[in-house]
Amino acid sequence: MAGDKPDAEEIFKEFKEQSITQFFRKNSQMLGYSGKVRSLTTIVHEYVTNSLDGCEEAGIFPEITVEVKELSENKHHVKVTDNGPGIPQKLVGKALASILSGTKFHRYVQQRGQQGIGAGGCTLFSAITTGKPIAVKSGTGKSALECNVAVDIKTNKPLITEMKDLPADFKGLSVQGEFGDTKYERSDHGVQEYIKRTALSNPHITIKLTEPDGKENIFLKSVNEMPKRPKQTKPHPLGISTRDLLDFAHTTDKNKISSFLSESFSRVSPSKVAELKEIAKEVDFDKSPKSLLWPEAEKIVEGFRGMKWMAPETDSLSTIGAQQMESAMLNIINPQFISVTERKPKIFKGGIPFAVEIGIAYGGDAGKVTEEGTKGNIMRSANKVPLLFDGSVCAITEAVNQIQWKRYGIKNFDEEPISVFVNISSVYIPYNGIGKQAVSQEPEIIEELKLGLMESARKMQIHINKQRSMHTMESRYRTIIRYVSQLATNLSEITGEDKSAIEKRLREIVESKYDISDAKETSEEKEEFETDEEE
Amino acid sequence: MAGDKPDAEEIFKEFKEQSITQFFRKNSQMLGYSGKVRSLTTIVHEYVTNSLDGCEEAGIFPEITVEVKELSENKHHVKVTDNGPGIPQKLVGKALASILSGTKFHRYVQQRGQQGIGAGGCTLFSAITTGKPIAVKSGTGKSALECNVAVDIKTNKPLITEMKDLPADFKGLSVQGEFGDTKYERSDHGVQEYIKRTALSNPHITIKLTEPDGKENIFLKSVNEMPKRPKQTKPHPLGISTRDLLDFAHTTDKNKISSFLSESFSRVSPSKVAELKEIAKEVDFDKSPKSLLWPEAEKIVEGFRGMKWMAPETDSLSTIGAQQMESAMLNIINPQFISVTERKPKIFKGGIPFAVEIGIAYGGDAGKVTEEGTKGNIMRSANKVPLLFDGSVCAITEAVNQIQWKRYGIKNFDEEPISVFVNISSVYIPYNGIGKQAVSQEPEIIEELKLGLMESARKMQIHINKQRSMHTMESRYRTIIRYVSQLATNLSEITGEDKSAIEKRLREIVESKYDISDAKETSEEKEEFETDEEE
Repeated sequence: MAGDKPDAEEIFKEFKEQSITQFFRKNSQMLGYSGKVRSLTTIVHEYVTNSLDGCEEAGIFPEITVEVKELSENKHHVKVTDNGPGIPQKLVGKALASILSGTKFHRYVQQRGQQGIGAGGCTLFSAITTGKPIAVKSGTGKSALECNVAVDIKTNKPLITEMKDLPADFKGLSVQGEFGDTKYERSDHGVQEYIKRTALSNPHITIKLTEPDGKENIFLKSVNEMPKRPKQTKPHPLGISTRDLLDFAHTTDKNKISSFLSESFSRVSPSKVAELKEIAKEVDFDKSPKSLLWPEAEKIVEGFRGMKWMAPETDSLSTIGAQQMESAMLNIINPQFISVTERKPKIFKGGIPFAVEIGIAYGGDAGKVTEEGTKGNIMRSANKVPLLFDGSVCAITEAVNQIQWKRYGIKNFDEEPISVFVNISSVYIPYNGIGKQAVSQEPEIIEELKLGLMESARKMQIHINKQRSMHTMESRYRTIIRYVSQLATNLSEITGEDKSAIEKRLREIVESKYDISDAKETSEEKEEFETDEEE
Repeated sequence: MAGDKPDAEEIFKEFKEQSITQFFRKNSQMLGYSGKVRSLTTIVHEYVTNSLDGCEEAGIFPEITVEVKELSENKHHVKVTDNGPGIPQKLVGKALASILSGTKFHRYVQQRGQQGIGAGGCTLFSAITTGKPIAVKSGTGKSALECNVAVDIKTNKPLITEMKDLPADFKGLSVQGEFGDTKYERSDHGVQEYIKRTALSNPHITIKLTEPDGKENIFLKSVNEMPKRPKQTKPHPLGISTRDLLDFAHTTDKNKISSFLSESFSRVSPSKVAELKEIAKEVDFDKSPKSLLWPEAEKIVEGFRGMKWMAPETDSLSTIGAQQMESAMLNIINPQFISVTERKPKIFKGGIPFAVEIGIAYGGDAGKVTEEGTKGNIMRSANKVPLLFDGSVCAITEAVNQIQWKRYGIKNFDEEPISVFVNISSVYIPYNGIGKQAVSQEPEIIEELKLGLMESARKMQIHINKQRSMHTMESRYRTIIRYVSQLATNLSEITGEDKSAIEKRLREIVESKYDISDAKETSEEKEEFETDEEE
């Protein structure tokens, strides 16, 4: 049927499928490519994140260099080089140019990347804005190569050109490309801040940034220990849905549901399976997992939820560590005082382990310097990756805002030299968008963050109070000591005794009453703080 | 190499690719499935949107029924039926179960759907939360069928079962499914509000909702005209990037760049191509578009940007229309006063046409009734689809908040019985997420929205002022008229003339001075408003 009123056949002539690359080509803002400054930071973020994951998985102390050059207005050259394991030749294209592929998204192991989108997104963004491929060098120790990679937008397949062998002594990965619609800015959302914050969350790395004006920023590693390697883990029975269970069942190599359950999930022992059998009596635990149906899986999940379980294993988590956090904060923020809290892992959504670490820095160079003076600063991080955008919707911001800072001696968070540094670690960080810049506001996460913040704030308050009482004591001492000389003169006149002897004795009495040796020291060291207090 | 320090080969053994369906399975919150209430609204939204697009494309006045039933706590049955063109048998599976496929995303035509994700997302969400397929009936007028559709999560391919023929007199589309993790709530974010707002944005449709408690909501069409069909359009030369141009060039069937340009883009006449040739002299306009290279395409785009162009054709836009908007608002909001503004189409990002329509309703049932009283209400809509979520980041909210309402007689927007209804129409609405609930804050869009809001607000103010001065005049009239009778008595006594004659004459004088015929009427009709004013 033609004309004004087309029928289904006519309408559906236009039916087409698009690739994920075509989709993100039109919606690159969803990957973090929105705004010129953010786009440039996103590129650096994706490559640095991949480098860190690669190095750590290979057990190598990461050494990363980042160079940004301005090619023309709104067009930049970005190069990121690492000393990691490299990428095998046959996977260079897919790993760096295809979207939704990688080594990470299907494993229960804590890593920075989660989705297999990052590097492919950069390749796509370069193609969209400059039409250029990404130049790659990769050396695995056994062999090395260089090539250009691009992506076929229609099919999401990698396009590799100019593949050449390199001398095998090149080890690591180097990627470089040209990106339009970008802007270099030294702001809270810029590349330099991102690199600084990466160093803060990763005290074991060395990272160097060369800015477009040639300025070099070098952050040397501040600890000599590699972070604990997170263990690949199995899902906890309280953390899985019916759908998850079915999917695992249909792909397992076990022959019976009973052995499948005890092999596939953490904390599920054969005796726990026996207990479950008593609850989910409708299910035949001897049949093949491949034949498990939805209602049966539902019964099993319901059964799991009614049973008592040990908490999930927490060695799947790799935190920064209290000591390391403190070293990094001293090194990079240079505050007057630091209070660090590393909380024990907790779980959210029934079975997903996570851990929070909180560092509060006060005084010195803490806080954020703005035109209106120094302000409170919230530095968010998830799995050691700095989060620079979308702070207003993030669980971390929400938790910091819910703290009644006055109780901890902070009159107005927004007007004090305070930096709150928070890192959340989890196998599954619940981000609220593909751009991964904000942690979704899960109630259990906010609650745990608040407990950690309050713990750190209490420690900080004890210090502040101690300083304040020292200060009070010292002013009393100074007030009284001023009269000692006059009093000694008067007493000498009245009693006829030697003035200097009287004065010495009086001083001893006053000093024994006000033990100000600490206070004196404090007031010298902490001049800035004391000055603030007197205002 | 084995052990603690795996090399690239070992690390990349884990390399895998995932389908877009696997990706969204893990990240369903990105499709709008976050929170039980929102998930249910998202399902209804996706199906209703598809139905409306289908009916309108086939030139049919949409009649849609939506039924929601509670199956158990957090589990609902949703059924949506329309009188549209149906889906041809061979595409039922792909259209309803695959993600990233459809008739819409690749055409330059204004539709509600843009991405080919909606219905596939519902099928996926049902699979994730209940393991059930979607039951479909489709009749195209020539044939009809029923079947169940599901999606293979690993491959994003549709799975069709129980396909049966139906009598060919079934015409339209009916989809029904079961969805877990859902909650029915009569709130600002619930299904009922969504349906009401859909009726408001689409005065030409009839839509019926049966709620879980059996309550029926019927919104009959309030206009008897179909909206103007948006024309499929060509991109404007100022709205394309180098990448766009290259992609068009590489898929065109024209033989020369010159003919390709004048055929593929709006406003590019042969004489404009001649003008361009003078600017982009490096480019060989006689060669095949297939051989166009990035630097050449860049020159052409730069050339385009330096030339003068007629604005894009705006018949690609299908607005609600001022008359229609007013009818719908009267019908559904029932306010005391309405002021509607339909602005002429403008462009953003250089070449993308868009149009805004603003309706302001005041008094009566306008505003949002809350426990603390009636409040100002912002009702957002894009391409006639209500936007219920993420208001805080939306360009529409931002524009409304930037208006100084006091200037227009609204003391405090949050405390008055006012509803601001805004619809943005465009071939490309720049949403800020896949969930499509907020319009990205493009400066040109915010500016245009503000102009429209101010225009509507001025009209409203004139009315309010008129009412206020009527009111003042009327009270003066009443005050004076009270003395007329007394005065007539006194004058009659003094002059000896007939009292009733004097009174009649006096009344005439007073009434001629205060022309209150309008005011009387107004004060009767608009009692509620006047009462408000007197408080």
